[in-house]
Amino acid sequence: MALGLTTAGESHGPALVAIVTGLPSGLRLDKAAIDADLRRRQQGYGRSPRQQLETDEVEVLAGLRHGLTLGTPLALVVANRDHANWTWGMSPWLPEGEPRGKGTKPVTLPRPGHADLPGTLKHDHGDVRNALERASARHTAVHVAAGAVAKALLGELGIEVVGRPVEVGGETTGDGMREATDAARKDRDTLGGIAEVVATGVPPGLGTYAEKADRLDARIALALMGIQAVKGVEVGEGFALARRRGTEAHDEIYPGLERRTNHAGGSKEASRTASRSSPVPR
Amino acid sequence: MALGLTTAGESHGPALVAIVTGLPSGLRLDKAAIDADLRRRQQGYGRSPRQQLETDEVEVLAGLRHGLTLGTPLALVVANRDHANWTWGMSPWLPEGEPRGKGTKPVTLPRPGHADLPGTLKHDHGDVRNALERASARHTAVHVAAGAVAKALLGELGIEVVGRPVEVGGETTGDGMREATDAARKDRDTLGGIAEVVATGVPPGLGTYAEKADRLDARIALALMGIQAVKGVEVGEGFALARRRGTEAHDEIYPGLERRTNHAGGSKEASRTASRSSPVPR
Amino acid sequence: MALGLTTAGESHGPALVAIVTGLPSGLRLDKAAIDADLRRRQQGYGRSPRQQLETDEVEVLAGLRHGLTLGTPLALVVANRDHANWTWGMSPWLPEGEPRGKGTKPVTLPRPGHADLPGTLKHDHGDVRNALERASARHTAVHVAAGAVAKALLGELGIEVVGRPVEVGGETTGDGMREATDAARKDRDTLGGIAEVVATGVPPGLGTYAEKADRLDARIALALMGIQAVKGVEVGEGFALARRRGTEAHDEIYPGLERRTNHAGGSKEASRTASRSSPVPR
Amino acid sequence: MALGLTTAGESHGPALVAIVTGLPSGLRLDKAAIDADLRRRQQGYGRSPRQQLETDEVEVLAGLRHGLTLGTPLALVVANRDHANWTWGMSPWLPEGEPRGKGTKPVTLPRPGHADLPGTLKHDHGDVRNALERASARHTAVHVAAGAVAKALLGELGIEVVGRPVEVGGETTGDGMREATDAARKDRDTLGGIAEVVATGVPPGLGTYAEKADRLDARIALALMGIQAVKGVEVGEGFALARRRGTEAHDEIYPGLERRTNHAGGSKEASRTASRSSPVPR
Repeated sequence: MALGLTTAGESHGPALVAIVTGLPSGLRLDKAAIDADLRRRQQGYGRSPRQQLETDEVEVLAGLRHGLTLGTPLALVVANRDHANWTWGMSPWLPEGEPRGKGTKPVTLPRPGHADLPGTLKHDHGDVRNALERASARHTAVHVAAGAVAKALLGELGIEVVGRPVEVGGETTGDGMREATDAARKDRDTLGGIAEVVATGVPPGLGTYAEKADRLDARIALALMGIQAVKGVEVGEGFALARRRGTEAHDEIYPGLERRTNHAGGSKEASRTASRSSPVPR
Repeated sequence: MALGLTTAGESHGPALVAIVTGLPSGLRLDKAAIDADLRRRQQGYGRSPRQQLETDEVEVLAGLRHGLTLGTPLALVVANRDHANWTWGMSPWLPEGEPRGKGTKPVTLPRPGHADLPGTLKHDHGDVRNALERASARHTAVHVAAGAVAKALLGELGIEVVGRPVEVGGETTGDGMREATDAARKDRDTLGGIAEVVATGVPPGLGTYAEKADRLDARIALALMGIQAVKGVEVGEGFALARRRGTEAHDEIYPGLERRTNHAGGSKEASRTASRSSPVPR
Repeated sequence: MALGLTTAGESHGPALVAIVTGLPSGLRLDKAAIDADLRRRQQGYGRSPRQQLETDEVEVLAGLRHGLTLGTPLALVVANRDHANWTWGMSPWLPEGEPRGKGTKPVTLPRPGHADLPGTLKHDHGDVRNALERASARHTAVHVAAGAVAKALLGELGIEVVGRPVEVGGETTGDGMREATDAARKDRDTLGGIAEVVATGVPPGLGTYAEKADRLDARIALALMGIQAVKGVEVGEGFALARRRGTEAHDEIYPGLERRTNHAGGSKEASRTASRSSPVPR
Repeated sequence: MALGLTTAGESHGPALVAIVTGLPSGLRLDKAAIDADLRRRQQGYGRSPRQQLETDEVEVLAGLRHGLTLGTPLALVVANRDHANWTWGMSPWLPEGEPRGKGTKPVTLPRPGHADLPGTLKHDHGDVRNALERASARHTAVHVAAGAVAKALLGELGIEVVGRPVEVGGETTGDGMREATDAARKDRDTLGGIAEVVATGVPPGLGTYAEKADRLDARIALALMGIQAVKGVEVGEGFALARRRGTEAHDEIYPGLERRTNHAGGSKEASRTASRSSPVPR
């Protein structure tokens, strides 16, 4: 049974929702661990002060009993605490007694670097908000919660996946990244960067060559490029390999099936993703 | 109805097979156009002389009547002409009267840069050939045939997708690429490179922000990273954006919804892929 | 874009949850209409008095803005009002300060006619409750809510789907059904029955012969047989056709493409389902 | 990895094609066994004399090596021997030198009881043949071949699935069925009937209650109702249960988890399907 993830949620609507299917029964989940990942997402250096005040928290509506999965679909909810201030514009139902449209001045200026323009054209929306609310990076919160569940499952299998920024604004050290971030913030601008994700403990043979869409590299690329603002994905040494000869690019197999290099991301999976963020203060 | 593609086929088995589902009825296909794409795949500079002698040809077993699709699944076959020389080792059924195993000396040396090792471990194969036959780049032939069908459909919609190598062995001009290729061949080595794929005529709003796995960027990444030896995918300016500030990275929207830049691959979709090839002469 | 439905929820857990994907934007939903369907589900003749006191209500967490769909996944929640009395046994997280296991005496007696036994064997559950909570017919509530959404969409297309019991306990009139129900209740027993579902306004050509799993009949059968306790599905005259000759079984096509009979459920789709209920008072 | 089946093929086109995905590697297939099932399909009592002369045979193009599956997609082909006589009308490509349309007088009379009419309306076909070729029951041949592969896999697991007609033309004995068949044939008419499919050795817990569309009953109903002319599906005692009280309908669980009845099709899965055939001699 493959894991499945279905999500819903607008940035200022009542909540973000995820249903995770295909989990085994008896997996122990830890609310504190999920909430810690949600907090980690919110409190990166350079996030707005508002972000640092808000505290996302996971709520489980189904699939879990006393901390153990039931082998049934798991329903996760991350409430949008800010929704209380947005009911005039984003309540699912028209507030009682309120004439339609009152107080909901449409957004008419599409921002670059977002789904605002194509989304509005696609659906023929009269209000850009109808597109931007779902396309927002706010949505990644419920993916973080679902990811924390996947992490618990992988942990049972001895697989660990860790990620970290390796470049921000062209800087590759923590100090450099923070300085670049401060400078960009002062200019009311934003920075791009590169994150690296490394998985350890992955058994050989995961994924398959039988069907292209099931290849591990392909699925990793789908998952990473589906994240807002990501514009590049590399596995192993990625584009650098394009300038190597085959003899320099391959990971030779030594006796005992040992490999001493990891150009292709094979023995120790290493995916890198590039993203750039929006210059429009949110 | 979404297009679907299911494929089968080993490198030295009888044939490669694809079933394309979801095609509309009444689409005109042209055998010569599909075969021209198959030939183009075979006759790139630096391919082995054997490749240049073989000529792949598409055969259609279902879904087509007098050159027009029926709106039913389309079955494509690309025969492996070389199979006639491989029946001893790769016939689907044990040749009559032949004791099992005779003449099928197993391959025991896994090549680096291929699925040989993980595939053999995954299936506990005693013969590396059981893995390498399907994992082979030979398989891309039937994807080229299916791609030629998709191209015919896109053509009806005014969409054109073209690809070309933009870098081979670090060289970016045709002459340089050819020289690098000759030099590598002389050394019995191989080269990596970068290909660029550009689609024109794509209507705004294709794809969606509603679900991550349906985002156009994500699906492009899945398709490209699923190709053998591809280790990186960029959309638009990709990794270069990671070193820009937001104000330099976004494609400003001018009156009339015009854009004068294409950093994000939005107005004119531009995906780049990096790959490296195998040093093991096939 | 096909409609998709993913659900979660246990009978006495916090809530039932559904995410409906593939809805167009701009579809008007009416909370009162959805709640009316939920009430209709609860207040059928013979339901327990408790059912008639409880009142299910839909809550929307995503995908809807002021009563109009956004073209994004729609998240529906139907709270289990009874959960407040069940936190000792069914809270997702172990109630604080409470030692695991206290007050959660496991259910050890599997009921026939339910998933209790196979579910417990499948997951090696030590507590039958771990299986029965999800397998419960309580779960149909959120399907009713999702169905009310689908009904709104179909309404825009001029399609109406109605269902009614045509046989209960062998009786085919309202009076007879009610009497049989009363008698069974008096004996603390339950009754089987047959429901008929009729769709009108369905355009010819819906569904397809191109792939078996997409045939309309097949998908109707999947949907109906997926409902708890349903053990038979007929389209048109169903099993009665098995005793007819072809000349009596077909729906002749008259000039103007008119048909005067509906043996096969073609012109006016008529599916019948059989179900029987549990004798175990819940 | 779930088994998948994708098929293609028209009744008088070159061939029927199936790709089976998700098979394990190392499964032994037997060509004679697959061909025996194909012959069994063709030579039922009452089939036309032509059917009894033709002999379908499976060809494998991929996924198999010396009779053992490779764990890669398996490509099956069942050639339409009659295609040689139909190239004027059904060749995939327009025969060389032949002006389009010559010799391909369109079929304009839709037959009842077939997809002729809805298929032609759906695709706006000018020739009914464009619909009837795929909708034909001829297509079941390649499903029989794929089914024979599934049977080999199930055999490894100790599961056996057998089917037989239990009623033809209202008759329930072999003699009666044959007489009814002869009588109908004399009148140039056809008969409906009921087939029973029984699986033995099925482990408890197959299928799931976690998601409706994955329930075993639901998937059986999908598969059976997707077969041409099938109009009813029952599991266990099916519709007969609708007239029972719960106390008479359930399969009581005795000590040792034994059951002495099989009303619900649980211990020994018993699905029944009803179908009626076409009165139009093909």
